[in-house]
Amino acid sequence: MPVNPNAAIEITAFRWVPEFAQGVVRDLRARWALEEAGLDYKVQLLGQERPADYICEQPFDQVPILREGEVQIFESGAIVQYIGEKSEALLPTDTRERFRAIQWTYAALNSVEPAIMNLLLIDIFFTGQEWAKLRRPGAEDFVKLKLKRLSDWLGDKQWLEGDRFTIGDLVMTTTLRFLRHTDLVAETPHLGDYLKRAEARPAFKRALADQLAAFAANQPQPEPEGAAA
Amino acid sequence: MPVNPNAAIEITAFRWVPEFAQGVVRDLRARWALEEAGLDYKVQLLGQERPADYICEQPFDQVPILREGEVQIFESGAIVQYIGEKSEALLPTDTRERFRAIQWTYAALNSVEPAIMNLLLIDIFFTGQEWAKLRRPGAEDFVKLKLKRLSDWLGDKQWLEGDRFTIGDLVMTTTLRFLRHTDLVAETPHLGDYLKRAEARPAFKRALADQLAAFAANQPQPEPEGAAA
Repeated sequence: MPVNPNAAIEITAFRWVPEFAQGVVRDLRARWALEEAGLDYKVQLLGQERPADYICEQPFDQVPILREGEVQIFESGAIVQYIGEKSEALLPTDTRERFRAIQWTYAALNSVEPAIMNLLLIDIFFTGQEWAKLRRPGAEDFVKLKLKRLSDWLGDKQWLEGDRFTIGDLVMTTTLRFLRHTDLVAETPHLGDYLKRAEARPAFKRALADQLAAFAANQPQPEPEGAAA
Repeated sequence: MPVNPNAAIEITAFRWVPEFAQGVVRDLRARWALEEAGLDYKVQLLGQERPADYICEQPFDQVPILREGEVQIFESGAIVQYIGEKSEALLPTDTRERFRAIQWTYAALNSVEPAIMNLLLIDIFFTGQEWAKLRRPGAEDFVKLKLKRLSDWLGDKQWLEGDRFTIGDLVMTTTLRFLRHTDLVAETPHLGDYLKRAEARPAFKRALADQLAAFAANQPQPEPEGAAA
């Protein structure tokens, strides 16, 4: 059970987030990678009010950070790569294969995620705004194009580079999960099964359960009746 | 002069692009990194019609790719990291410092570029569309927030991690260049000077000149008079 208060590795995560974000906050990537690698970690939970010096560690005020001794890294892609270098289960050591995995990590975060995040923001944050209504069809088409490119590449392969799961798959499938409010992934050949294979991994399940457990434990209490009056 | 037809490293680039894209196409990142590292490279120039099998190498149909022997990598972030591992001029070997640089590469591509690219698309590709007009103020505010975060981090430092230029600065400053059609970078404390320092590097100047030289040599000929009739 890798969550261990005495672990050398610490990550940050949110104490609680609204339901639409539960199960997709980016510390999931770090937790999943640590589970795949079999590395213990502890968690610093953050509220809306961050510690005053948090911005000095994470200039964009987000989670996760990873801390291990003198090492201090933000950005989920970099964190997953750091964990990958500790475990052949995530990142091959051969240069050619290693950079195939690393390129997919970048591809997920720069060639796929921006299109998906754009649609997510339109659907969740900007719902009802006039520009969002006008833009949505084009934004969805752009997501579909990205998914088609990915689907064409994947074909019948189990993982992006064949039989071996890597950090590239971990980051790509957590990126696809940002579309869970739509049927777009399931409707694209190969991608629905690809995502199911990823989510069936025991390490993924443990990581997801641990992220959700923190939210369940820190559910805000409803206002007492009449408090709003 | 690193462009060398007999070099072991090959990258792909476009033969020609419209003026708004000249000087910011992403092979610039690969060229610049290779110049900083002092590594010779050759270039495969691509037209709008790519070779039939290009999509098998680059699933998103973009440039650059890097090829070296058995190594074949797409995504500019991964390519720059690969080149960085060949040269301490770009990427420290110490684990702590190495991941500080790598995290900034990811931060540029995932925490900064999507906001900037969104504004660029609104201004360049979707000009005049109703949704783009309605969305622009919010999109610009989001860019300003990202630039402020970056500016607060940078302060009076020369580079993102202090006195040493790394792949993180290379990718971040090429990302900021996507805003060259605005004054946003110059108007943000520290960032205008940061970008100028980067663009003053001889390796950057050579890389930019070589990208632009291909476009100048392959400028489409104007239609003969009356051809449109």
